[in-house]
Amino acid sequence: MKIMNSGVTAAQGFKAAGVYAGIKKKRKDMALIYSTVPAVQAGTFTTNVVKAAPVKWDIKVTKESPFVQAVVLNSGVANACTGTEGDLNNELMAKAVADAMNISVNSVYTASTGVIGKQMPIDVIQEGVKLLAAELKEEIEAGTLAAEAIMTTDTYSKQCAVSFVIDGKEITVGGMAKGSGMIHPNMATMLGVVTTDLAISKELLQEALSADVKKSFNMISVDRDTSTNDSLLVLANGLAGNKMITEKNEAYANFCAALNYVTTDLAKKMAADGEGATKLFETQVVGANSEEEAVILSKSIITSNLVKSAVFGNDANWGRILCAMGYSGVNFDPDKVDLYIESADGKLKLVENGMATDYSEEFATKILSAKEVKATADLKTGNATATAWGCDLTYDYVKINADYRS
Amino acid sequence: MKIMNSGVTAAQGFKAAGVYAGIKKKRKDMALIYSTVPAVQAGTFTTNVVKAAPVKWDIKVTKESPFVQAVVLNSGVANACTGTEGDLNNELMAKAVADAMNISVNSVYTASTGVIGKQMPIDVIQEGVKLLAAELKEEIEAGTLAAEAIMTTDTYSKQCAVSFVIDGKEITVGGMAKGSGMIHPNMATMLGVVTTDLAISKELLQEALSADVKKSFNMISVDRDTSTNDSLLVLANGLAGNKMITEKNEAYANFCAALNYVTTDLAKKMAADGEGATKLFETQVVGANSEEEAVILSKSIITSNLVKSAVFGNDANWGRILCAMGYSGVNFDPDKVDLYIESADGKLKLVENGMATDYSEEFATKILSAKEVKATADLKTGNATATAWGCDLTYDYVKINADYRS
Repeated sequence: MKIMNSGVTAAQGFKAAGVYAGIKKKRKDMALIYSTVPAVQAGTFTTNVVKAAPVKWDIKVTKESPFVQAVVLNSGVANACTGTEGDLNNELMAKAVADAMNISVNSVYTASTGVIGKQMPIDVIQEGVKLLAAELKEEIEAGTLAAEAIMTTDTYSKQCAVSFVIDGKEITVGGMAKGSGMIHPNMATMLGVVTTDLAISKELLQEALSADVKKSFNMISVDRDTSTNDSLLVLANGLAGNKMITEKNEAYANFCAALNYVTTDLAKKMAADGEGATKLFETQVVGANSEEEAVILSKSIITSNLVKSAVFGNDANWGRILCAMGYSGVNFDPDKVDLYIESADGKLKLVENGMATDYSEEFATKILSAKEVKATADLKTGNATATAWGCDLTYDYVKINADYRS
Repeated sequence: MKIMNSGVTAAQGFKAAGVYAGIKKKRKDMALIYSTVPAVQAGTFTTNVVKAAPVKWDIKVTKESPFVQAVVLNSGVANACTGTEGDLNNELMAKAVADAMNISVNSVYTASTGVIGKQMPIDVIQEGVKLLAAELKEEIEAGTLAAEAIMTTDTYSKQCAVSFVIDGKEITVGGMAKGSGMIHPNMATMLGVVTTDLAISKELLQEALSADVKKSFNMISVDRDTSTNDSLLVLANGLAGNKMITEKNEAYANFCAALNYVTTDLAKKMAADGEGATKLFETQVVGANSEEEAVILSKSIITSNLVKSAVFGNDANWGRILCAMGYSGVNFDPDKVDLYIESADGKLKLVENGMATDYSEEFATKILSAKEVKATADLKTGNATATAWGCDLTYDYVKINADYRS
C-alpha cells in the first residue's frame, strides 16, 4: 500500500471543487465531488432520532439509486430541525447539481453541517452550485479546496489517500472529512466522503463500509454528542479496470485494508483536531474477554470528562481511568488491571494489579506532555483488544461552544 | 412539613463533629455522626465495578448488621484502588470509632472521598477519630462542621432538614452531602448522610431510600463520571416515639415525602455547586409515553457537554437540546416536540413542533443569564414526566480537573 499526499481527487475520474457561496460570513462554504462516470455508492449515517434533511435524503439514495455521480456539501447551516421546508430545500440543492451536471437528481448525495434549526438560504446555495460546477477539477488542490469548504470549527482540513494493486491494476482510495464538535462514537460518524476507482458491487461496498466504521469513525469521540448530520459516503466508479469484486476474495480484503487506512487516518485527524483539543489521546484495552467489552471499555475512558481534563493538565491521574472503566457497564476484575502511558517521550507502567507502581510523577508528566498520548489498560483475562481515539478537554472547548452561534 | 435551618443533628439523639486531622494540607478533613441509641440503617452505593474499601465495608454493614450507631467520614483520600491494605485501613478506621464510642465495629459506617489510589494515613486517622469523639455535639453548628469536613472541591457545605408529624409526634429528617465532581446519575450518589428520629423497620427504611434516590440523587449529573465511592447512608433511631412503621401506610408516605424533600434539596445543591458551575440547570421532560423514557431524555440533555457549554454562554442553542434527546436511545417524534426555557426572568417557547418559533434571542439570553435555569421539552404523546438537575460546563471545570492533585 502506497500512501499518497492527496484526497478525494486521487482516484481516477473524480473531480472536486470548493467555493465561497455566501452561507458563512467569510470562509469557503460549499463543496462538490463529481465522478465522470456513474459510481456505486455506500453510506453510513447518524443513528440520532433527529435526522437532518440531507441524511434522510442520502439514506434513500443509498438504498434505492443504482449509482451516484455527485456529492454536494455545505457548511454554515445543518438543515436539521427544519421541517418540510428543509426537505424541499435539500431536494432543490440536489436538483441544482443534477441540472448543472446533466445527471439524475437521484444520483446526487447531499450533506450539510453547521447550526441546527436555521433554514437554508436556497438562492445562495443554487448560485453556489453553479460556481462549483464551473470550478470542478481533478487536481490535488481541487480536493483540498473541497475539504476546506466543509470545515466548521476544524482548524485544518482532513484528507488521506492510498493506492494498492489488484489484478495488476493500481487502485486508489482517497477521502476527506470534517469533525471537531458533536462527535461521539456510539453511532455513525461526521461528514466524510471517500472516493475510489475500484470496481466493486454496490452490496460489497456497503458491507465493507459498515464493517469498517466500527473500527474507525465509531471509535473516536470528541464530546459524546452524536450529531444530527453524521454521514460517511463512499463512491466507487470502477475506472481502475480491475475485475469487478463480487465476493469476499483477496482483492476484497486488500480493498478493506486500504479503506481502513484512509478512514482511520481521517478519524484520528478528527479526534486530534477536536474542538479546543491540544493533543490526540489514544486508549487501548488489551487482554479483554471479548472485543465487545474492549470496545466499551476503551470508549468509556476516551469519553470521560475527568480523564480528558487530566490529559489536558498532563496529570497522570490514573484513578480516573480505572474509575471510567468501572462504570462502563463491563464486569472485570479491577485488582488484575495493569495500566501504561506512552508517547514519543517514553513508556511507563502506572498501575500493576489495580494498584499504583512506584512510578516517577515527573516522567509521567513528561510523557503526557506530548502531542500524541496513549494509555493502555491490560485486563489480563483474555486476548481481545480495541483502540479508541479522542482528545483532551480544554478551556477552548468550552469557549468555542459557549458562543458557537455568535 | 416544616423546613428547618439544620442538618444531620436536627433529629433527636444525633450528635456530630467535624475536625482537621491532618489528611489534607489545611482544611477540615474528618467527620463523625453518632446516634446516642442504636439506629436502623439503609444505604445505596455506587454501581461502579471499582468500589472503594469503605463502600465494600458499608454494603456488608447494611446487609448484615442489625443496627448502626456511627458514621465516620474523611476527605482528602478516597481509599479506592488500594488493595487489601486499603480494606485493612478502612476496618482500622471503623475500629477506632468503635473503641472511642464503646460500640461494636459492625455498627460503624465508613465513607471516604478524595484522590483515588493513595493509601490512608492511618495513624493520622486514628488520632482524628479521638479528636472527633471528644468534639461530638448535638447543636446545629456541629452538623455544619461535619458537613464542611467532607467537602473536596465543593464551594459550600450542603445541609437540609425538615420536620413533620406522625401519631402526634414530631419527626425530624436531616441530612448532609458533598458533591462537586465525578458525579453522574446512572448509578447511585456521592457521599450523603441522612439522620432521622423516626421509628421504622430496617426493611422499609431501605425500601424508602432505594425508591427515593431514583428521583433525587440519581437525577443529577455534573460530569457523567460515576465515582468509586458514592454512598448515601440513612440512620433512623426511633427517638421521636412514633408507632414503629412496619407497613406502607400513611405515616410511611409522609416520611417518604420528607425524605424526598431533604434528598432533592441536597441533590440540587450538589448540581448547582458542580465543579466550576455558575448556575443550576434543570431539565424537565413532559408528555412522554413512559417515565422511563422521560428519565432517559432528561438525563441525556443534562449531560450533554454541548448543551452545558451553551448554558454557560447564555446561548439559546436549542438544536443541541433536540440533538441530545435524539441520541438518547429513546424513540420519539422530533416533529412534535415543543421546547421552553424558563427562569426568574421569564418563560419563552423556543420550539414548536420541532421547529424554531419567532422568539427574541435577546429575551432568551436574559432568561438564561439567571442563576437557576430550566428547560422543558414537551413530547406531546403521553403523560409521563421526569426532572433532572445539572450545571453548566465552564472554564473552571477544566481548570479544577486539569490539576486536581497539585
